[in-house]
Amino acid sequence: MLRALREEGVAAYGFNRSPSGAKEAGKEGFDASYDLVETLQRAEKDGALIVLATPMPAIASLLDSIAEHAPSCGFTDVVSVKTRVYELVRERGLEDKYVGGHPMAGTADSGWGASKDGLFQGAAWVITFDHAVEDTPSEEWVALWLDVVSMALAVGAEAIPSRVKQHDAAVARVSHLPHILAEALSIVGDNGGALALSLAASSFRDGTRVAGTAPSLVRAMCETNSAALLKALDETLVLLQDARAHLDEKSPNIQELADSGYRSRVRYEVRAGVRDTPSVSPTKLSNRPVFRVHPGAPNWTGQLIQAENLGARIEVF
Amino acid sequence: MLRALREEGVAAYGFNRSPSGAKEAGKEGFDASYDLVETLQRAEKDGALIVLATPMPAIASLLDSIAEHAPSCGFTDVVSVKTRVYELVRERGLEDKYVGGHPMAGTADSGWGASKDGLFQGAAWVITFDHAVEDTPSEEWVALWLDVVSMALAVGAEAIPSRVKQHDAAVARVSHLPHILAEALSIVGDNGGALALSLAASSFRDGTRVAGTAPSLVRAMCETNSAALLKALDETLVLLQDARAHLDEKSPNIQELADSGYRSRVRYEVRAGVRDTPSVSPTKLSNRPVFRVHPGAPNWTGQLIQAENLGARIEVF
Repeated sequence: MLRALREEGVAAYGFNRSPSGAKEAGKEGFDASYDLVETLQRAEKDGALIVLATPMPAIASLLDSIAEHAPSCGFTDVVSVKTRVYELVRERGLEDKYVGGHPMAGTADSGWGASKDGLFQGAAWVITFDHAVEDTPSEEWVALWLDVVSMALAVGAEAIPSRVKQHDAAVARVSHLPHILAEALSIVGDNGGALALSLAASSFRDGTRVAGTAPSLVRAMCETNSAALLKALDETLVLLQDARAHLDEKSPNIQELADSGYRSRVRYEVRAGVRDTPSVSPTKLSNRPVFRVHPGAPNWTGQLIQAENLGARIEVF
Repeated sequence: MLRALREEGVAAYGFNRSPSGAKEAGKEGFDASYDLVETLQRAEKDGALIVLATPMPAIASLLDSIAEHAPSCGFTDVVSVKTRVYELVRERGLEDKYVGGHPMAGTADSGWGASKDGLFQGAAWVITFDHAVEDTPSEEWVALWLDVVSMALAVGAEAIPSRVKQHDAAVARVSHLPHILAEALSIVGDNGGALALSLAASSFRDGTRVAGTAPSLVRAMCETNSAALLKALDETLVLLQDARAHLDEKSPNIQELADSGYRSRVRYEVRAGVRDTPSVSPTKLSNRPVFRVHPGAPNWTGQLIQAENLGARIEVF
């Protein structure tokens, strides 16, 4: 985020609990501290927008620190599970200061060394809006919501509105389940010994890529989203059990799985513009529908719910 | 293969049953025909090495055509399952003319348009040797074996010796299972509707990539290797059922899966040199051990079996 915001000429500074992490950023000229209280007090003075960019386990104590040292700041986060974060926010009565976020971007690597320019270019960036549907938000909250959307757009992402439950159900399928399957595939390949690993090519490489993610991060997201993930995993188990039964027949036949899997992948490719990308342009052209939204206008939450249903991106005016 | 061999200055010509496929290649100056009998008669006259580069279902009739029109030619294939091909070869008494092959390279796309330079660079290319262990091969067969290895090395691949059963067990884990999991993931993501597809990022893209393979190809490889695939799939189902149980506990905990999956992926990366590759060199540096083998020398099959155990690549002298 620091990289991406500097690239766009937006003033930004950061905190990292690890002195070496903060120093690494400092060497590249970024304004980064490892003193949390000092950084929050500075944010309070500046009326800054705070971005919590840590895994789930650190969120609760950070919320407490914000409430203590930067009580008038609005804040957002980038955690991959939104229901649990929102529970923690509500438990502290901070919902009028908070807009949830989740940029769908990253690699299996972490730490300052893994940061890179252009990370958010064309990425989906979920912006939550439960507070506007469930409660009567303040004008300040509407302004904060607009700020968070603008920040996502500024770094090249596409802002997708979603409530926390809908978000968590969706990412269980397209982000957490891929991690579970990658871990299992990685283990079963490895069980094949040296010959299997030696023969592993791109299908194995790509299918196991995210198994290279730090186990603590995988656990943080999957365990925190267990209800939604269980539903996705159960659907998967039914498909695999069914394929197993068909493979065990006298004339093995997995036509159903192969045909539906192919059709689903093609639908995804059309949606994501995957097939078109490499040859046409270095930046991804979005195939997502666009909704133009004026935050706070009559029925704007109705528009957001419609956009959520369609996985549409929004522009604000 | 035509592309790769021409790149290396090796005389080669091809047959494709589709006139338009052959013509497309012809437009780029390749010598390609859609007349099978004519092409085989030409191969017979030239004493050519024949490469069968079709999916499994076409193999039986091609073997019959070779037996009829090019009976003195040695031949190899690139089919991803080796036991069934070898059965078909033996049924026709052609085992002294045949050396099985399997280059671990390709994409989800097929047809002439999907061919590209450098496809085999650094790829594993399995070379079978059952005939040398089970029977007493002729000197011509040993020369043919050397030819097939030399061809794989000529196009930049690494030759890995393996018998058909060992090969099929290994690829069930690292190639066929990834296809099954990709199909299932693709369907379960799609079940999440527009929002899920809109939020799908690189973990879903990579985890489902091979679901974009033509279903007939996926079926051909998985159904033909069902026994080995069932074993790999059953191991996967045990891991996933176990993860399911842990996710359903009061305090969800998938440490075991996440930790072992990570360790396995790291082992694969070390073996494949994945982590080192991008920054260092455009061509992949092999981390596979090398065995130097003299085909036909005393105990050369013992050396091949050792190489097979280690997933080692071979050099011939």
